[in-house]
Amino acid sequence: MRYSLLFGKTRKEVSKDEISLNAQLLIRGGFVDKLAAGIYTYLPLGLRVLKKIENIIREEMNGLGAQEILMPALQPKDIWEQTGRWESLDVLYKLKSRQDKEYALGSTQEEVVTPLVKKFISSYKDLPLYLYQIQTKFRDEPRAKSGILRGREFGMKDLYSFHTTQEDLENFYQKAIDVYLRLFTKCGLKAYKIEASGGTFTKKFSHEFAVITPAGEDEMIYCDACGFAQNTEVAKVSEKDPCPTCGKELKKATDVEAGNIFDLQTKYTDAFDFKYQDKDGQLKPVLMGCYGIGTSRLLGTIVEASHDDKGIIWPASVAPYLVHLVALGSDPEIAKQAEKVYQDMQQAGIEVLYDDRDEQTGVKLNDADLIGIPCRVIISKKTLSEKSAELKARAEEKAELVKLDKLVNQLKICSQ
Amino acid sequence: MRYSLLFGKTRKEVSKDEISLNAQLLIRGGFVDKLAAGIYTYLPLGLRVLKKIENIIREEMNGLGAQEILMPALQPKDIWEQTGRWESLDVLYKLKSRQDKEYALGSTQEEVVTPLVKKFISSYKDLPLYLYQIQTKFRDEPRAKSGILRGREFGMKDLYSFHTTQEDLENFYQKAIDVYLRLFTKCGLKAYKIEASGGTFTKKFSHEFAVITPAGEDEMIYCDACGFAQNTEVAKVSEKDPCPTCGKELKKATDVEAGNIFDLQTKYTDAFDFKYQDKDGQLKPVLMGCYGIGTSRLLGTIVEASHDDKGIIWPASVAPYLVHLVALGSDPEIAKQAEKVYQDMQQAGIEVLYDDRDEQTGVKLNDADLIGIPCRVIISKKTLSEKSAELKARAEEKAELVKLDKLVNQLKICSQ
Repeated sequence: MRYSLLFGKTRKEVSKDEISLNAQLLIRGGFVDKLAAGIYTYLPLGLRVLKKIENIIREEMNGLGAQEILMPALQPKDIWEQTGRWESLDVLYKLKSRQDKEYALGSTQEEVVTPLVKKFISSYKDLPLYLYQIQTKFRDEPRAKSGILRGREFGMKDLYSFHTTQEDLENFYQKAIDVYLRLFTKCGLKAYKIEASGGTFTKKFSHEFAVITPAGEDEMIYCDACGFAQNTEVAKVSEKDPCPTCGKELKKATDVEAGNIFDLQTKYTDAFDFKYQDKDGQLKPVLMGCYGIGTSRLLGTIVEASHDDKGIIWPASVAPYLVHLVALGSDPEIAKQAEKVYQDMQQAGIEVLYDDRDEQTGVKLNDADLIGIPCRVIISKKTLSEKSAELKARAEEKAELVKLDKLVNQLKICSQ
Repeated sequence: MRYSLLFGKTRKEVSKDEISLNAQLLIRGGFVDKLAAGIYTYLPLGLRVLKKIENIIREEMNGLGAQEILMPALQPKDIWEQTGRWESLDVLYKLKSRQDKEYALGSTQEEVVTPLVKKFISSYKDLPLYLYQIQTKFRDEPRAKSGILRGREFGMKDLYSFHTTQEDLENFYQKAIDVYLRLFTKCGLKAYKIEASGGTFTKKFSHEFAVITPAGEDEMIYCDACGFAQNTEVAKVSEKDPCPTCGKELKKATDVEAGNIFDLQTKYTDAFDFKYQDKDGQLKPVLMGCYGIGTSRLLGTIVEASHDDKGIIWPASVAPYLVHLVALGSDPEIAKQAEKVYQDMQQAGIEVLYDDRDEQTGVKLNDADLIGIPCRVIISKKTLSEKSAELKARAEEKAELVKLDKLVNQLKICSQ
């Protein structure tokens, strides 16, 4: 993509009411635009990152044997009354049609998925079953001051599992934990599994996945060595204690919750009278788990966890492009060589953003740092005098000269 | 995918209030589930079709030079007041937050995209610009009786173009017409461009794209030979006249509107005072066009246009799978050979749904016809006695025997 043509360039100013770091960087970098508090538009750069995150999640969900569906956001009142959450879930947006039909906007989807599965599943032979979706959700947040970490409209992956026995549920739950940890790693994050105190809808156990960020909403005590972690609010250990699991050193850090999973037991299957027939023909309650990850929240978490004072530092797996190609200087030979490199990279299947603008060196380099694409490639009079380009990783200080005829191959290796 | 594991199998019964043919077939085939009138869940089979349609559209939009973004559905009241549509657009769902903030649910997005583009674009140098999104939209439909053809919640691709001159707008508008016609062809549909009388928001010209369906909502006079078409309500010719364009025969048919495009002139750019600076530094109004296709509506249109009394007949380009592999008979050798064919097809990258259930022949064949996957492959005692499988196109009556060792190669050619 030529940066000159890209919609959503960098901006100097962010409105003063935008106090969250993730939104400030994402707005300045041209990734998102704020429509209203907690409500953002994804510009081309931001949408590319969001889709990469979604695809990493999708791959892991499919690997779990989960099937993707897409449930509606507009949900009739009666299903929410059936679980009592029409009244109790305070973040639920509610609306009336012209004909006075009442609807909720889905902030979570147990009320839809449970009766849906009940329509199709009646026997132990059809269980377990795992369904997920990646869908826009809505929450009537009283304060929306965390940028895309806590939006009034946001993207979310929600997975629901249905089981015949507690043992089967717990086995799957454990698999989901492993998949979640791997998935966060794939997104360039180090996540810690935390036993959670439970949200509005927990009967038994639940876990959160916490990512260390400098300005996190929560605080945890954790162990680098074995992954032990507890929220400081409920922690039974302090920084001074040895790790209760492995005996090594404990640390304290602020963190962001990047996902959560719940053992729902029969809370929702009871509400919808969803039972299965076992081998002996007896009707038994279906057990259920749910597993959420906010996709837009994850995008914001990555920014909170991975940036410096110049801008964002995208992990390669979710970066909007792998390479930021920058032509410096007005000599036509520079533009010609940069154009050739741009074409060669595209032919080689390397995702490249090409800053072809007629702008000052400082502007271009500052923009590259702000946007945060993993590999910066500079073509200038100086590099061309060595028949080279300058290659620098966003996360590192050191740059190297790479011969033009070796450049694409070297980058191709990075992109694999 | 093994059909035994697939969530969303065929159903015999459809509730009596579901009177539209598209929803009846899609529900019976296990593609969608109805949550409420005009509100559907996409089951795994249906979501696969929807995504294929989206990707065909995406490819064509990118080919036009349009950039993909994602705008919010939750939209503050003030932007809708600015265009006067808070009051005038009767299909707008409206809601209030706990803090009495008022929002509309987007049914179209001129109110979001126009001020968004205004934030970034100020000079003639930055125009033209084309932005699109594929997003869930909402309409407070008084009657929702057309299945997924006219949902209260539905998928839509909306493209917006911004121009400095009427000539430039008209050139792009013509390109969009060509792209739309090609895109419908790619989805297996023959669409006719109809000059439209204009909806609520037309100042100058607009066009609809009509697809002939047996039970269409509209009626048109058209010419097979040259593509001339007019809605009968406004047509200046009748069936008895020769085609005014090419002189050939005119026909009459019912049709479904599968897309529409509008020259918006400066209606919305004026409302948001969006001007650009021309070469001489003068401020001039930005011209705008918009171009819509309902993605879920298109899915329903394909079903309306392509089915028989046994079920759906998916065009290969949007089919959930290319091959429906059916093992008939309880002999273990049949299951073994079918399993091998299934594995071979997957290895060859052929999308295959494998009916591995222990069901009667009639059930399996009826399900295959209902689901409507383009190629049906039967493995039975009879076919195995010839070291073959039976291959039959869903759209045709005739079947042929294909040697097992040639099967995958033959199907691979079909899938390319």
